[in-house]
Amino acid sequence: MDEEPPPSDPITELITTYNELNSSVISEITGNISPLEFMRYVARNRPFVFRGGASEWEATQTWNVPELKALLKGQSVNVAVTPKGNADSPTRDGDGELLFVKPCEEHQTFEEFIDFVSQQGVRVATSATSSEKEIRYAQTQNDNLRNEYATLFSHVERDIPWARIALQQVPEAINLWIGNSLSTTALHKDNYENIYVQIIGQKHFALLPPLDYACVNEQELPPASYMRDEDGILKIVKEGGEKVPFATWDPDREGNETVYSKLATPMRVTLMPGDMLYLPALWYHKVSQSCSEEGICCAVNYWFDMEFGGSLYPLCNFARSSGLAVLKT
Amino acid sequence: MDEEPPPSDPITELITTYNELNSSVISEITGNISPLEFMRYVARNRPFVFRGGASEWEATQTWNVPELKALLKGQSVNVAVTPKGNADSPTRDGDGELLFVKPCEEHQTFEEFIDFVSQQGVRVATSATSSEKEIRYAQTQNDNLRNEYATLFSHVERDIPWARIALQQVPEAINLWIGNSLSTTALHKDNYENIYVQIIGQKHFALLPPLDYACVNEQELPPASYMRDEDGILKIVKEGGEKVPFATWDPDREGNETVYSKLATPMRVTLMPGDMLYLPALWYHKVSQSCSEEGICCAVNYWFDMEFGGSLYPLCNFARSSGLAVLKT
Ligand SMILES: O=C(O)CCC(=O)C(=O)O
Ligand SMILES: O=C(O)CCC(=O)C(=O)O
Repeated sequence: MDEEPPPSDPITELITTYNELNSSVISEITGNISPLEFMRYVARNRPFVFRGGASEWEATQTWNVPELKALLKGQSVNVAVTPKGNADSPTRDGDGELLFVKPCEEHQTFEEFIDFVSQQGVRVATSATSSEKEIRYAQTQNDNLRNEYATLFSHVERDIPWARIALQQVPEAINLWIGNSLSTTALHKDNYENIYVQIIGQKHFALLPPLDYACVNEQELPPASYMRDEDGILKIVKEGGEKVPFATWDPDREGNETVYSKLATPMRVTLMPGDMLYLPALWYHKVSQSCSEEGICCAVNYWFDMEFGGSLYPLCNFARSSGLAVLKT
Repeated sequence: MDEEPPPSDPITELITTYNELNSSVISEITGNISPLEFMRYVARNRPFVFRGGASEWEATQTWNVPELKALLKGQSVNVAVTPKGNADSPTRDGDGELLFVKPCEEHQTFEEFIDFVSQQGVRVATSATSSEKEIRYAQTQNDNLRNEYATLFSHVERDIPWARIALQQVPEAINLWIGNSLSTTALHKDNYENIYVQIIGQKHFALLPPLDYACVNEQELPPASYMRDEDGILKIVKEGGEKVPFATWDPDREGNETVYSKLATPMRVTLMPGDMLYLPALWYHKVSQSCSEEGICCAVNYWFDMEFGGSLYPLCNFARSSGLAVLKT
């Protein structure tokens, strides 16, 4: 889209004022952080990266493929399978219709899963069959580190004390993410305060503040899932049910822009093992990853309920409704 | 105005969502408050009253008319003089034009000022001349407690430690307010975090969150001042210069409503001697007062610079521009 954003409408002013008053370079913390310091970031709804904040964790110090295999020996795990590493993401089906496509969820032993993920680099380099090219990602986001992966839980912090004290609550969910560089998590937002901790490999975040709603081109997408056909090939299958409102713009690609997208200045940060990211509630995030030498990427994140009281939530909601209303006309 | 607010436009949704998620009854704190607890209120941009937070201050314990006279003996002070207690307020002139009218500023000895203010109740009851009916209010808002009234400063806290630590700054201004029940401060907002401390008498606040912009009927008012004519009578005199954007709706009176005003649910709080109010940045406030038995009302407030980084300021600005745009059409 080549149109310019309307120069002096309230939405253009909102996005440009924010960008003038806020850097698109992330704040970096080293050493230590207190609950009060953390609360100052929460108050501003601004992210930071805490370099090395988890470098002493047992997980960061000891996890690798053999160690994880030993810890999870014989256990069955839930795996998201997709043809292109696009779990929970806006994807066109064969007819060109844009759908919100969920992954095919399958169970397998942890050993089979981690071998498949870690050896994929080798396999893709050689000639792989279509099922060998599939992308697998353990990403259930259902508090899996205190359930499915409970045997690993003692290797990370139970909660994040500076966040628990500041927010006056324990985490609502603690999630483990294991995949490789072929998985990408599409731009989306969550109603949670998120403390994201890198354990193995790297994660690359592109972040947009919630008031950039008008840039992300939210659309109502029919829900769908990948399912295997009789030959075991993954096919997109539309589901009935309510449409899913979802961002369709990808800050790293042409296409699906709104007139406002060019105003967005994504904040980019790469997490190294032991780094922590505070990803504030309602921020849009797109997440890609790079593997360790063993061919995996592993992270843990803590979701804390966000505060719906106060001004932030109603105002962000207002920016969203206003953006949708203007873009519809 | 009898029109109903549009039922499902984004501004109606903004105001009603906020009211559903936030009580219009103010939070009360007793005992103690830490910087972290304070920061949680700043993060939500929500007011609280800290009952008795300043009850041990020397000011609260010792100030009264004779004591203040002794402390300020012979000193000349700046006094705002108005015919109706309406300093800095939208007022109609003789032609019915709505103006932003500033008070007549005069200098007098503190003794003359405080006698005039404290004896006004008696005077108004008997037949007073028009100049005896004038309302005087010491309200310069220019850091007067560290300048004009510096001899009183050691009787209050230098800063408010829990606010100074949380906000990482010393107060930008500390102001003393001395008047009687005939002065009212019109609904307005400030770009400051405000800690307001009642010393003598009572103050009655009506508070509206910043996102209620569309309720307050902001208009561009020509500036004016009260000036004395040759007979010493206060007259409104229009000034040249830029118009002043100012709220014209009074939550306690009919008139000047917008279609959204009826959605507002003002939060009301009365401060007693020794009480402190946290009045968050950008909140609209209308302030009236009740005298002590001596016929005065006295308060001290601390203004801290607000945070322009983060989401709050751009989003409030957006709610304002959107409200103005909708109301203009
Ligand atoms: O790590 C990922 O792939 C996505 C993380 C994410 O979306 C989250 O933590 O909310
Ligand atoms: O006390 C008053 O009359 C007004 C106080 C006020 O507006 C303020 O503290 O910002």
